Amino acid sequence: MNNTPAALLHLLARGAGETLIDQIVRSLAARIDDKLLRGGARMPSIRQCAASLQVSCATIVASYDKLVARDYLESRRGAGFYVRERAALHTPLPPATAAPGAPQPMDVVWLIRNMFRQAPGQAAPGSGMLPPEWLDGDLVARALRDVSRQSGASMISYGLPQGFLPLRQQLQIKLAGLEIACPPEQIVTTVGVMQALDLVAREFARPGDTIFVDDPAYWLMFGAFAAMGMQVIGIPRLKDGPDIAVLERLAAVHRPKLYVINSVLHNPSSTSLSAAKAYQVLRLAEQHDFLVVEDDIYCDMHPGAASTTQPATRLAALDQLRRVIYLGGFSKSLAANLRVGFIATSPERAQRLADRKMLATLTSSDIGERVVYKILSQGLYRKHAERLRARLDQVREPTYRRMERAGLRFEPAQAGMFVWADTGRDTSVLAEQALAEGLVLGPGSLFSPRQLPSTHMRLNLATVQEERVWDFFDRALGAEA
Amino acid sequence: MNNTPAALLHLLARGAGETLIDQIVRSLAARIDDKLLRGGARMPSIRQCAASLQVSCATIVASYDKLVARDYLESRRGAGFYVRERAALHTPLPPATAAPGAPQPMDVVWLIRNMFRQAPGQAAPGSGMLPPEWLDGDLVARALRDVSRQSGASMISYGLPQGFLPLRQQLQIKLAGLEIACPPEQIVTTVGVMQALDLVAREFARPGDTIFVDDPAYWLMFGAFAAMGMQVIGIPRLKDGPDIAVLERLAAVHRPKLYVINSVLHNPSSTSLSAAKAYQVLRLAEQHDFLVVEDDIYCDMHPGAASTTQPATRLAALDQLRRVIYLGGFSKSLAANLRVGFIATSPERAQRLADRKMLATLTSSDIGERVVYKILSQGLYRKHAERLRARLDQVREPTYRRMERAGLRFEPAQAGMFVWADTGRDTSVLAEQALAEGLVLGPGSLFSPRQLPSTHMRLNLATVQEERVWDFFDRALGAEA
Repeated sequence: MNNTPAALLHLLARGAGETLIDQIVRSLAARIDDKLLRGGARMPSIRQCAASLQVSCATIVASYDKLVARDYLESRRGAGFYVRERAALHTPLPPATAAPGAPQPMDVVWLIRNMFRQAPGQAAPGSGMLPPEWLDGDLVARALRDVSRQSGASMISYGLPQGFLPLRQQLQIKLAGLEIACPPEQIVTTVGVMQALDLVAREFARPGDTIFVDDPAYWLMFGAFAAMGMQVIGIPRLKDGPDIAVLERLAAVHRPKLYVINSVLHNPSSTSLSAAKAYQVLRLAEQHDFLVVEDDIYCDMHPGAASTTQPATRLAALDQLRRVIYLGGFSKSLAANLRVGFIATSPERAQRLADRKMLATLTSSDIGERVVYKILSQGLYRKHAERLRARLDQVREPTYRRMERAGLRFEPAQAGMFVWADTGRDTSVLAEQALAEGLVLGPGSLFSPRQLPSTHMRLNLATVQEERVWDFFDRALGAEA
Repeated sequence: MNNTPAALLHLLARGAGETLIDQIVRSLAARIDDKLLRGGARMPSIRQCAASLQVSCATIVASYDKLVARDYLESRRGAGFYVRERAALHTPLPPATAAPGAPQPMDVVWLIRNMFRQAPGQAAPGSGMLPPEWLDGDLVARALRDVSRQSGASMISYGLPQGFLPLRQQLQIKLAGLEIACPPEQIVTTVGVMQALDLVAREFARPGDTIFVDDPAYWLMFGAFAAMGMQVIGIPRLKDGPDIAVLERLAAVHRPKLYVINSVLHNPSSTSLSAAKAYQVLRLAEQHDFLVVEDDIYCDMHPGAASTTQPATRLAALDQLRRVIYLGGFSKSLAANLRVGFIATSPERAQRLADRKMLATLTSSDIGERVVYKILSQGLYRKHAERLRARLDQVREPTYRRMERAGLRFEPAQAGMFVWADTGRDTSVLAEQALAEGLVLGPGSLFSPRQLPSTHMRLNLATVQEERVWDFFDRALGAEA
């Protein structure tokens, strides 16, 4: 409970519009949901809490009462208020058919909730996002103002299900730069890459089917696929791409429908596919008749052809969208809240995915798509991405050195925002310890399709630039040495 | 081919940025996809087409060649170019398990594509939307400008998965006015009502489960549910609500998981639920243990408590979100492209649906939600809705009289934008005839969960205000009389 009052005050200041009581209730409930307040913990007394929040005792009494009514707290006669012990708040996302070895979505849900409701005062060395100050709020704000002046009235009618045409034309140019030939008819915009993954899985796999992913990989999709009743199997990811021998063996056994892979700047390792590995993946896809879903969300954090030391082969550049479905988006590198992602694929699949999108969300909003179009077409995005890469490069080496001092082992990369660090101990335990100090880690078990314990964790170069992060690692890792 | 050149010219003018050839290819392909150019039809000669589009013959040759390459046209030696006969352009949205009696999504896909790609010069008396000039583009543009000035930079980070909190607080007030008590924690925003239906079906039903809908009802959801492998069964909709005897009998046989119903201003009949029917629906839901999904998208076209002649009972007002999941949105009454819908439900279900939303699209974009919040909180929405109702009321009686003159039979309503009109003949045939004249009807078979032939069609009070619509009906219906 150490930092609750300060954290609450912060929340109170932000949630104008609610009653004071509702604000207190909401923020305490959120902290209980997020397990920042654990079942069984004693709450501060009415008087203490009122004093630290600078509100009346009556307000706290009413707030605690509401939390009791909502089953968050229990009142023990004469002993104060306690956080109620609960097995699970709800039955989260049960897969339609329980696949053996399927992930337990609670952990995923827990981490993602935490990601979205980061408490004030917390740091997130394992975060999947860049901090707002690393991105360019002004750039996005200006483009949104332009869009609102020019096309506010066009918000009345539905946009095209395939997405805003000028953006798709801009994407054609962007893809051409990556040696992927793709006219606008073969592009479907989506509500972020997450919807792209959702639509592709729904259209090209069925409950009971198997989907291959990298191991480790972006964890949220494990829960998404499992919730559709699909079996998720991980292919070990090595320095230059997947372990081809394992891929070959498992493909023969499991006959997957899809293989979802980050070819460039893999999350969480920031490694990229070698040309040889890329070719072998496509050869196996052909042989075992599966589609390759190339998730290239970190595309613009890679310097591209400019770099000779950082080769990165895109599967779609080899295959030209025959068997590869290419996904991209702007949530990581530009602005997440615009919710702009896209799928580039064959004409026939693009049509099927556009239909599938209609059945899911009818259309995506033009607004975000117009904003991205504006930034892309004015040449501002390229400069923004260059600045972003330069800033990441600036902290890269010093961070590597600091990691070494903390006793972390890792494979250095020359681009990207993540490092996959080996701590030599179970990072789930470490993450629990870190959380008690307000640090949200990305423990390796989360990135494992089978959520196996792991000594690895993901670090974000941008969010580890706080001395208290290293204080923690020095203490926590040194203690066991 | 009568109006192709004019239509094409129009399209050419709009699609700036593409090459001329690509524009011609795209618009011709779209017309073939939309069946405006039928398989087997002869295309105009190169020379004719070049003259009417005022482009060079070489441009048309290149365009036709591309269309041949894409399998849209075939070249018959010495006889010119013909639209290729094709069984189906693709396999559209096959249900995971083919439920007997499930709809054939092709028709749905065809109509909705047509809806989104309305060709210039077409009129849509069967449209589900109000024409842009009936809504208030300035209102939306102003609010968007405000939002862009105040919160452009907040687009950098993800919003809350449950949706923009001030909007949910505003919705709490709106719902309170409908006698539905619902705090913001019980509201989840969605990418339009379509995503709300998608999330609810995915969370609370499984492939093979049965979903009840009204018959007739909003057709797009039939395809959405069928694509998830769910069986869709219609409950006959009478003047004051569903046929309770049928509902009771079918509920006992099919044990549905969900019953999706428009309680107020049902699409396509604009009838509303009586208090007695509402009570009986809830009683049966209790008895047969299904959830009621109350789709109240037309809410604000109803005058509400102000009207004594138009009773309308909301299921959620009776049940207070215990067994009723309430859906609302702003696509019909404010602006479709903002993509703002919402779900109001129990706290436990709201949490599950917010998680489910994360797995589908992570979050929805704040932008549209902030725009709606602004318009709602400034009291502008209420006035806008009043104006909209007044305008619909203005055309209602004259339109009814015109319908009678055309020989249409219907149940007059006192609110809403739709009329469900009986033509006395198969409206699918009528729709084909109308399409040849550039009129897009809403034939009854589309609104039937089993796509049975129907003598009914949906008319939209706002889009039938063109004399050529009545010219057509007078001719087409009179001819058979």
